[in-house]
Amino acid sequence: MKTDIEIAQEAVMEPVGKVAEKLGIPEDALEFYGRYKAKLSDEFLDSLRDRPEGKLILVTAINPTPAGEGKTTTSVGLGQAFGRLGKKAVIALREPSLGPCFGIKGGAAGGGYAQVVPMEELNLHFTGDFHAITSANNLLAALLDNHIQQGNELQIDTRQIVWKRCLDMNDRVLRNIVVGLGNRTDGFVREDHFVITVASEIMAVLCLAEDMQDLKKRLARIIVAYNYAGEPVTAGDLQATGAMAALLKDALKPNLIQTLEHTPALVHGGPFANIAHGCNSVRATRTALKMADFCITEAGFGADLGAEKFFDIKCRMAGLKPDAAVLVATIRALKYNGGVAKADLNRENLEALKKGIENLEKHIENLQKYGVPVVVALNAFVTDTEAETEYVRGFCEERQCEFALSEVWEKGGEGGIALAQKVLETLEQKESHFQVLYEDTLPLADKIHRVATEIYGAESVNFSAAARSQLKKLTELGFGHLPVCMAKNQYSFSDNPKLLGRPRNFELTVREVYVSAGAGFVVVLTGDVVTMPGLSRKPAAYGIDVSDDGVITGLF
Amino acid sequence: MKTDIEIAQEAVMEPVGKVAEKLGIPEDALEFYGRYKAKLSDEFLDSLRDRPEGKLILVTAINPTPAGEGKTTTSVGLGQAFGRLGKKAVIALREPSLGPCFGIKGGAAGGGYAQVVPMEELNLHFTGDFHAITSANNLLAALLDNHIQQGNELQIDTRQIVWKRCLDMNDRVLRNIVVGLGNRTDGFVREDHFVITVASEIMAVLCLAEDMQDLKKRLARIIVAYNYAGEPVTAGDLQATGAMAALLKDALKPNLIQTLEHTPALVHGGPFANIAHGCNSVRATRTALKMADFCITEAGFGADLGAEKFFDIKCRMAGLKPDAAVLVATIRALKYNGGVAKADLNRENLEALKKGIENLEKHIENLQKYGVPVVVALNAFVTDTEAETEYVRGFCEERQCEFALSEVWEKGGEGGIALAQKVLETLEQKESHFQVLYEDTLPLADKIHRVATEIYGAESVNFSAAARSQLKKLTELGFGHLPVCMAKNQYSFSDNPKLLGRPRNFELTVREVYVSAGAGFVVVLTGDVVTMPGLSRKPAAYGIDVSDDGVITGLF
Repeated sequence: MKTDIEIAQEAVMEPVGKVAEKLGIPEDALEFYGRYKAKLSDEFLDSLRDRPEGKLILVTAINPTPAGEGKTTTSVGLGQAFGRLGKKAVIALREPSLGPCFGIKGGAAGGGYAQVVPMEELNLHFTGDFHAITSANNLLAALLDNHIQQGNELQIDTRQIVWKRCLDMNDRVLRNIVVGLGNRTDGFVREDHFVITVASEIMAVLCLAEDMQDLKKRLARIIVAYNYAGEPVTAGDLQATGAMAALLKDALKPNLIQTLEHTPALVHGGPFANIAHGCNSVRATRTALKMADFCITEAGFGADLGAEKFFDIKCRMAGLKPDAAVLVATIRALKYNGGVAKADLNRENLEALKKGIENLEKHIENLQKYGVPVVVALNAFVTDTEAETEYVRGFCEERQCEFALSEVWEKGGEGGIALAQKVLETLEQKESHFQVLYEDTLPLADKIHRVATEIYGAESVNFSAAARSQLKKLTELGFGHLPVCMAKNQYSFSDNPKLLGRPRNFELTVREVYVSAGAGFVVVLTGDVVTMPGLSRKPAAYGIDVSDDGVITGLF
Repeated sequence: MKTDIEIAQEAVMEPVGKVAEKLGIPEDALEFYGRYKAKLSDEFLDSLRDRPEGKLILVTAINPTPAGEGKTTTSVGLGQAFGRLGKKAVIALREPSLGPCFGIKGGAAGGGYAQVVPMEELNLHFTGDFHAITSANNLLAALLDNHIQQGNELQIDTRQIVWKRCLDMNDRVLRNIVVGLGNRTDGFVREDHFVITVASEIMAVLCLAEDMQDLKKRLARIIVAYNYAGEPVTAGDLQATGAMAALLKDALKPNLIQTLEHTPALVHGGPFANIAHGCNSVRATRTALKMADFCITEAGFGADLGAEKFFDIKCRMAGLKPDAAVLVATIRALKYNGGVAKADLNRENLEALKKGIENLEKHIENLQKYGVPVVVALNAFVTDTEAETEYVRGFCEERQCEFALSEVWEKGGEGGIALAQKVLETLEQKESHFQVLYEDTLPLADKIHRVATEIYGAESVNFSAAARSQLKKLTELGFGHLPVCMAKNQYSFSDNPKLLGRPRNFELTVREVYVSAGAGFVVVLTGDVVTMPGLSRKPAAYGIDVSDDGVITGLF
């Protein structure tokens, strides 16, 4: 069996100019980064403004399990299958984070014969977008501490600084630090924290910004601290907006690459799926819709987090109207949700499947609440039995939900043709009546309650005293109209990662609430969220190497 | 008067492919980064191996003053002038650091009509080389702390960790920090420090590496800490080499851009000029020599630091043989060295000039010690008087040293023709008998003594007790054969920045000594060295902005 990187390195890529040609993108609209990557110029993006838009297809999944679901693989394979059917399709994905490549997670470019390439470059520096975000984030931090050092005219309360430094690295010792030690020229001593770059609010801002003007407005609004009077101090107050925008000028442009079968892929942005909204950039999605008849995109984690935020944050803000949702599941993951241990997943177990499929059921119901037609994509494994597959098919069909088997990991686009045809059929026959879950005017606590009960299936919500007073303060500060961005573990519908399947009668505890004013949402923490990962006992870094002639090995 | 960025933005650049064509570089040897930047492929670099080499010209300067000398401007203008004379020349420069662009220093791309472009991109992210170095540096740090967290098999003494994290940002509060606070999953608490990226040893390693094989050898040798037995622990011991090399794969390739007059410029690498050697990469310099008849390069700070390290570190290691040195001076800076206050530099003052010119005299003598023919380039200012200029000319000619006036800032290549002709004449008529200042076999303390007395003009060297014992230890560890890399203030030949001109009868104090085993030199600190700059009261960042259509302003 070949590894993903071996398959990727064997691929004969087309020059990116040729990939662009398929979409009618002229050569002078491309800013090349090597031979196989290009950014789309601002002028070109502007020229698309009045074009009609294609169909928007969201790929989402059941709750993640150690058994794997293959959401990105399905997105890529579906795009490849559209290509084989002669359809003009673009895949719009998130950029992978560098840090986790050296940990245990590895990269994120799909898998098997459904990958985007060049895989190594995508997983390493790509076109430098994340480095630009890191720089902008840390410039803001440096300007903040420098403001304090130079007299603190804004009366920033160093106990109430909320802006954190960032690095695109898994580095646990930077989670909690003390800065400013030394003497008086070395700054004021205070507690500080580093987060991984994808957790920076600037990442979310970049992904939600319509254009440079909007980016600058959002950057200026970012709250970095509170002053002694308890009022917010923003990046705009620190005069940081222009310099940050200069650093982000190119990062704001979508990146064009290709799949193993030369399907165009816009890979751009990658905010955390917990404290942020976990979707690729609005700019890339909109560009894909303008250039092609079909845009296939995805959102982080399972549909309870990913699809909810895609709909209630990204689509709400950008005015996007999804036409269909593909819900990825595997027999293995459903059995895991039904209580089977990871080691036993290879054996047929209809009882466990019937129990675990409740997880899928709840996700189907949820997606239907948004008025979006659903196609379940069963990502096939060799260990799946006929009986198991047929059970899932019947289960879906009973619920007015389309079903297709996907074999894209093994067979590439060819293995996704059944799924692609099912999606095309659905788009033709079922109209989307997309609506967000709640109105802007609903009070924040009620928004949280609605997501918790309607999407997660919670019985009730328990707000901590801190959360209550934070909600009150944020409403007073004028943030009551913002959507909520839920930070919850991705394994369970509930806030207890061990409650698999479809938990019922549970209470969701809201621990803490804060605003990401630049991104434009209120973050709701329901448990501990690690915003700076660590490395494992044997980090993936140990196995990575480059040969003397520049071939990278050990990346996965 | 137009600003540098205005002149740069008005320039009509040639596509970088056309610039490459002048050097006979085929299109498929280029890895494009946008339209005006490209990296040269490894295959192309390999193909040059057996080509003869052109002439190597070092541009260096008298000691820096607030009056400005214009070393990079002269290098660029000289290259442009060679172009106008129909000569095949390449300029090999350092990449500017991002952090200082937001402080007070601004960018570094030459000035006036002698600049390399695209100026904004060069000063911001360029081709991402520095970001790659930041990532590799911080991956090594993360692997180090993770090793300790996971059981510390190598018995690393957390009081003797010498590896520091880095960011390409002026951020004083990161100079001295404490990391690892929190609970047991957040690492061990210890003191740590951030340096600016250009001060990372990886920057020096990248600049001295011949190829990927050599890069990996050097990375593996980097000492990150000492164990409880006092023995060095290296990056190789931490199994970090391969992953760091993967991050640096593209950063190792030289970048091709152009001057305002389309002269090819290889801009690659930029190590600190104090704790490192302050020269652009060996790979870029060698590539320039293979592609063109003339390679014009420069080194950081004045000739006492820059040229000494260029000769004794870079040329020694890479086997390069410089053919001529251009020594840049200005009347204003010479008068400043003669004791005139900055505000009074615009007035003719022959007395001060005669006094200050001792600084130039010592630099001429020093360069001659290396056996390299010297051309003094007097960078003209409108306030210079005829009498002053003629005095300098006569002074140089009395010392068997060529002289030319340079007006490249105002007139571009046209203003450098007199200088270019003088350099060409010198190359024809005077043979270089280049030799390094000391042999590898000389003991470390003697090497330091030789630089201090012969180059700086010190009477004696005072080693602190710490320095003495460090020299002994480094020799025992087998580093006695390495060249020394002097860290001294750049304003004076002495270790007292206020002693201008040509100080005599002074003692140089060596405070501390350590090895950069990957780079391959022993760093000698003669005073406090700030390896993480701070921001000023009104940082340049406040004035930087981007218009809605993507034009950057306020960068300088």
